[in-house]
Amino acid sequence: MAEERALAMVTCTAPVNIAVIKYWGKRDNDLILPINSSLSVTLHQDQLKTTTTAAASRDFTEDRLWLNGEEADVGHPRLQACLREVRRLARKRRGGSAEDSSPLNLSYKIHIATENNFPTAAGLASSAAGYACLGFLCRRGCWALEWAAGAQGGFGCSERGVTSWFLGPKVSGEKKQVGSTAGMQTSVDTSPLLKHRAEAVVPERLALMMRHIRERDFEGFGQLTMRDSNQFHATCLDTFPPIFYLNDLSRHIIALAHRFNAHHGRTKVAYTFDAGPNTVIFTLADTVAEFVEVVRRSFPPAANGDQFVRGLPVGSASLPEELVAAVVPEPVPGAVRYILHTQPGPGPQLLDDPSQHLLGADGLPHGRP
Amino acid sequence: MAEERALAMVTCTAPVNIAVIKYWGKRDNDLILPINSSLSVTLHQDQLKTTTTAAASRDFTEDRLWLNGEEADVGHPRLQACLREVRRLARKRRGGSAEDSSPLNLSYKIHIATENNFPTAAGLASSAAGYACLGFLCRRGCWALEWAAGAQGGFGCSERGVTSWFLGPKVSGEKKQVGSTAGMQTSVDTSPLLKHRAEAVVPERLALMMRHIRERDFEGFGQLTMRDSNQFHATCLDTFPPIFYLNDLSRHIIALAHRFNAHHGRTKVAYTFDAGPNTVIFTLADTVAEFVEVVRRSFPPAANGDQFVRGLPVGSASLPEELVAAVVPEPVPGAVRYILHTQPGPGPQLLDDPSQHLLGADGLPHGRP
Repeated sequence: MAEERALAMVTCTAPVNIAVIKYWGKRDNDLILPINSSLSVTLHQDQLKTTTTAAASRDFTEDRLWLNGEEADVGHPRLQACLREVRRLARKRRGGSAEDSSPLNLSYKIHIATENNFPTAAGLASSAAGYACLGFLCRRGCWALEWAAGAQGGFGCSERGVTSWFLGPKVSGEKKQVGSTAGMQTSVDTSPLLKHRAEAVVPERLALMMRHIRERDFEGFGQLTMRDSNQFHATCLDTFPPIFYLNDLSRHIIALAHRFNAHHGRTKVAYTFDAGPNTVIFTLADTVAEFVEVVRRSFPPAANGDQFVRGLPVGSASLPEELVAAVVPEPVPGAVRYILHTQPGPGPQLLDDPSQHLLGADGLPHGRP
Repeated sequence: MAEERALAMVTCTAPVNIAVIKYWGKRDNDLILPINSSLSVTLHQDQLKTTTTAAASRDFTEDRLWLNGEEADVGHPRLQACLREVRRLARKRRGGSAEDSSPLNLSYKIHIATENNFPTAAGLASSAAGYACLGFLCRRGCWALEWAAGAQGGFGCSERGVTSWFLGPKVSGEKKQVGSTAGMQTSVDTSPLLKHRAEAVVPERLALMMRHIRERDFEGFGQLTMRDSNQFHATCLDTFPPIFYLNDLSRHIIALAHRFNAHHGRTKVAYTFDAGPNTVIFTLADTVAEFVEVVRRSFPPAANGDQFVRGLPVGSASLPEELVAAVVPEPVPGAVRYILHTQPGPGPQLLDDPSQHLLGADGLPHGRP
């Protein structure tokens, strides 16, 4: 049927990646080449997943975008770059594969819908840029596997020993922070320390990190993860004007992790912070319950006590008195919104089941006129 | 009179210095050689001054120390090192000068009293280490001019055009921060960025800063002062475990300064932060009243409205509406404790008037039994 063939649709899911050797800044903005290689842990999609459906049709009159059900502006430069890339790849695929009968045509307009499965804190992940970025990653993973590999590595499923999780801090009333695209360009332009980090520090660290992972050396992995997170934020501070992603709560959590490790005499937890307000803690399975209880005692949940720990189940732990005395600070109630317990997981996945498309046969989100 | 000659007493005053090219870390702990040269602005003693009296007598049975009238432990390693140095210099002076008749003897015990003329916020400058440090600087200036010059420069009186002042932020209930002596050693041991800064960044900056000062180029001076403050704190963050001196209020003030400069299209104010919670703002005389009003609007004083601005008089300013709209954030009442308006001033001074000694003829603070 001509009508059906005029609509091409694909849906994929993408995980959240957390860099343990971080990259910040591009050496080529057009080719999106980073100034240094990086290494990320892929978190499991059961807890943190972005689903994106993209559709192309000759019947569409304009490019359109829905983020978590709300229509959004398609004018964002990154999204525009992505749409260009999608069309370029579609042409490429059409040229070289058996799918020449695909209805994808370079002149067709594209509809994109993207949704997260994780509870988004108000004002936290609601920026169009943030969503566009997730959608971009997803499309890159599904539509353009031949394109994206570049220098960025990742590991996930093979590291089942590593349990990672997520602290969603209370969102403060501060003005919107610097977006990562603009921020990293300013850093490249102004920070002498970033240049040195990319040239002289990261190559060694990358090799070392890969060795720690290969040898399942959590002590080494954790130490280097924390050092690299701190150094990334140091280069943000060396940017002019300076960029801050760490706040007083981040500082509290960092100090808490160091006291916890010092008390145990080894690295049992490792923090890392990306260009946003969330903390990610890596720890091994035998430490999860104890550290969750330490966080609960340090930042007693306000109203949502029963939703404070989400995701994978967490056992209960009672803390020895000397641990509490040495590690737990004066409590700051309500400062941490919730803890999401997750684990490493697989990369982007193409969904076969058409019922999981976020767009209907009319090219619009389900339940829309 | 044998009794009188048995007591030697000297009193000096020392200013507070604010480094605009900062040093952090020693390459030789015994010789106290910094890993890089630095450049400081000397603030005027009318507003910020530490007075120190030191006395030596054969009648003293032990070394004693009073900080702002309270007796303190003389066991602090830095104070001990200082007492050794004082005795060494006393011996040296005795050996080479006409003052061979001085009653100073290496075996004599020493009494030291030191006091600040500035209102110290609770918990802020009350640590023995902080006071000992001020006292140390003072003694270094007065007793040991032949010793201390080293690589640290300073400028003060010659820069009358530069008006500087001081924001005393509200003291939070956080645990005591890392002292600078221990902190800088950890930084030297663990921060790759600090090493690069000392070797590759500071030498150029120092030359540039001296040129800006020579040419009375406030734009260049202010930009470089802010960059260097940020880079110093970046190396603290790159330390492991990381050291934080900037907090959420510092971030607010930094953002405020950048918005203020952006609004005016040039660098009218420049912030700098040392290893503590205070902000120092450099600005020119014609900007003081306006920026003070911006700070007052951004951080409305709590109870002490009439003591919010201290030190040198500040004129009144009414802010244009577009300035308020562009620059002043949602107010954070009470976050800034007070503003101290001061200016550059002279270095350490020896006091001739014996009535200004902090110790009496009995070697004890006045009014003590």
